[in-house]
Amino acid sequence: MKKTVNKLGRFRIQLMLVILTLPLAAIGQEVGSMERLVSPEIADDNTVTFRIKAPKAEKVVLSGNWMPMVGEGMAMTRKTVALTKGENGVWSTTVGPLEPELYGYTFVVDDVNTLDTANLMVARDGTFRTENVLYIPGKASELYWAKTGSKGTVHQVWYESPTLDLTRRMYVYTPPGYADSNENYPVLYLLHGGGGDEEAWPTLGVANHILDNLINSGKAKPMIVVMTNGNPDQAAALTVSPKLEPSTQPAGGMANMMFEKSLVNDVIPYIESHYKVKPNKENRALTGLSMGGLQTMNTTFENPELFDYIGVMSMGFADLSRFGIEVDHSKRGEQIEALKAADPELYWIACGTDDFLYQSVVDMRNELDKHDFDYTYRESTGGHTWSNWRIYLSEFAPMLFK
Amino acid sequence: MKKTVNKLGRFRIQLMLVILTLPLAAIGQEVGSMERLVSPEIADDNTVTFRIKAPKAEKVVLSGNWMPMVGEGMAMTRKTVALTKGENGVWSTTVGPLEPELYGYTFVVDDVNTLDTANLMVARDGTFRTENVLYIPGKASELYWAKTGSKGTVHQVWYESPTLDLTRRMYVYTPPGYADSNENYPVLYLLHGGGGDEEAWPTLGVANHILDNLINSGKAKPMIVVMTNGNPDQAAALTVSPKLEPSTQPAGGMANMMFEKSLVNDVIPYIESHYKVKPNKENRALTGLSMGGLQTMNTTFENPELFDYIGVMSMGFADLSRFGIEVDHSKRGEQIEALKAADPELYWIACGTDDFLYQSVVDMRNELDKHDFDYTYRESTGGHTWSNWRIYLSEFAPMLFK
Repeated sequence: MKKTVNKLGRFRIQLMLVILTLPLAAIGQEVGSMERLVSPEIADDNTVTFRIKAPKAEKVVLSGNWMPMVGEGMAMTRKTVALTKGENGVWSTTVGPLEPELYGYTFVVDDVNTLDTANLMVARDGTFRTENVLYIPGKASELYWAKTGSKGTVHQVWYESPTLDLTRRMYVYTPPGYADSNENYPVLYLLHGGGGDEEAWPTLGVANHILDNLINSGKAKPMIVVMTNGNPDQAAALTVSPKLEPSTQPAGGMANMMFEKSLVNDVIPYIESHYKVKPNKENRALTGLSMGGLQTMNTTFENPELFDYIGVMSMGFADLSRFGIEVDHSKRGEQIEALKAADPELYWIACGTDDFLYQSVVDMRNELDKHDFDYTYRESTGGHTWSNWRIYLSEFAPMLFK
Repeated sequence: MKKTVNKLGRFRIQLMLVILTLPLAAIGQEVGSMERLVSPEIADDNTVTFRIKAPKAEKVVLSGNWMPMVGEGMAMTRKTVALTKGENGVWSTTVGPLEPELYGYTFVVDDVNTLDTANLMVARDGTFRTENVLYIPGKASELYWAKTGSKGTVHQVWYESPTLDLTRRMYVYTPPGYADSNENYPVLYLLHGGGGDEEAWPTLGVANHILDNLINSGKAKPMIVVMTNGNPDQAAALTVSPKLEPSTQPAGGMANMMFEKSLVNDVIPYIESHYKVKPNKENRALTGLSMGGLQTMNTTFENPELFDYIGVMSMGFADLSRFGIEVDHSKRGEQIEALKAADPELYWIACGTDDFLYQSVVDMRNELDKHDFDYTYRESTGGHTWSNWRIYLSEFAPMLFK
């Protein structure tokens, strides 16, 4: 028994919809092909069948981010799985069973990177790539989708940033019940990584689903979540205008302290004057991944009285000079002492053992230990991946504001 | 002179971003390829160069929705443009100059439909397809992107629909200045077509950009815009959960009056109790395209006292029985009389001369004329396309609430 819709039934429905919304000419085209592949198809045992029509291809492979890497150093590549050619030029392969998770994948057809056009779920990973999304339901991924129950609201908000001289966009999540409540709420500021933008956490990070599900199950307190754009020369994600150029500053917000200044001087005041907020240290949290982890460190070291809950994901005291980025760690000693004096409720550090920044996290922890600074360390398996960052958010949010 | 970023500079930035956000293994992969194609590249004269790397391909063509259709009836297909193979297996072609517009396109590589993975702008057209987005700036498309100036807020809102027994999602646009204002606002309810969902107008329809730009230039009054999901058996778009099945009702909201009932009984009361709204007929507008045009007709004929501004786009008194959908036009005569008695400020009908539903609009107008019903007719060129629906919204919104 397959979980997917009966194929004939599905095709019938599609056909009617096509006829009713496309110009006659396009209908001709759709009817002409008379088929709609189902890909990916998830079976009850979580094996997954992928299909693509490529009648003239000599080789079709599947590249999924659940597959292991092979080779070493700069020659490392992802292992792929070959598809087999079947009837009517349709190639297919069945993989798994796969663990419950949100995965990304693409096809490579005769050396051409190709999306699975039968799968309408496509996610953009910042300025890097687009890829298809595969969701395997189960216990480990149960927080990652819109389950039954109350839902928060996601707002795409434009605000003035005098610090950066830009009108900028951010995403603001307000929790279930917010609209009808007279309460004030605590706020989590949630930062993305280099190459990303304000759409990263609401899409790849499914932050709104994670928060809805944690709040509805009583595991996290109702909170507002603010997802900014961490690139200080960018008004908004490129989706807002296809003509927007990518950030011209190397590695976005790691080159200077401008984003951190705008967060403190522009974003927090906007949120605290436009939403029902408890505007104090006890009710402010800040966390981010990679570049956002550095920005979290920088912001809280420079403003030790602002946040009681601090989370640094997949980033430590890294030397980034090989990438042309000079990060000033010279004041870390006195900054740690200042933050220690401010005594935050929680300083949480999370990193995967395969993360390429793992050693920088070791270095950071050593420095914190030298100062007897109180922190919680969460070491996971895996590397510098959205899979880990979703897990970290799922674990960090329940510890806040308690 | 090309408008795009210097390629070497861009690559440098990309490389650094990649290194700082991906696991080491992935870095190797990225560095290994040592190139990033620019596609599409828009020149100053609005000619556009498309590129794709396909070293083993025998034939690569470009299919863009600006290209004419060829053939007749069911054999009609879109004319395509062949790309030419150049160095390093990179195929390219330069087309245009193209008129300012938001376009969709895909490649076909040896009969495989392929997205342009160098272009991170991808849009989903409902349950039909994903395609790349190409934005040509200019006078005709100036409303379609986030220009400088104040911006409204787009909210992804979940609400209870007792009528449909679902917790459902809709998009709500609040205009520039809304958050800081003590005013109440009029509301436009904006409906999508068959096969679409609540993400259609905010993405393909760029409704928030159109409204921002019309409001900022003084051409339209500040208003709230509500973009619902018109498929009565669907809680939300498939993007919310990759496991959501497509609508099981043929042609979604055309099969029965359930969406129309939920709009009146659930959506309007929610909006009028949760937003700063002028809750009366003079300050309510309803419009929709195709299926949404039928829903607009149905809703306003059944509830003649609800809306003072009514717009029917690309839909008339259509016989849809050939698609298995029975639409009840038997009461149109008395419905027209009832609506005439309610005397709405504006009844606006828009259709393209190439629309496959054009004749149904002629039939509708004939019936309205028989009853001396006062309406405004806007006939455009073109067919049943988002290009037309963006133009119609751009023209309809300025006529409202004046």
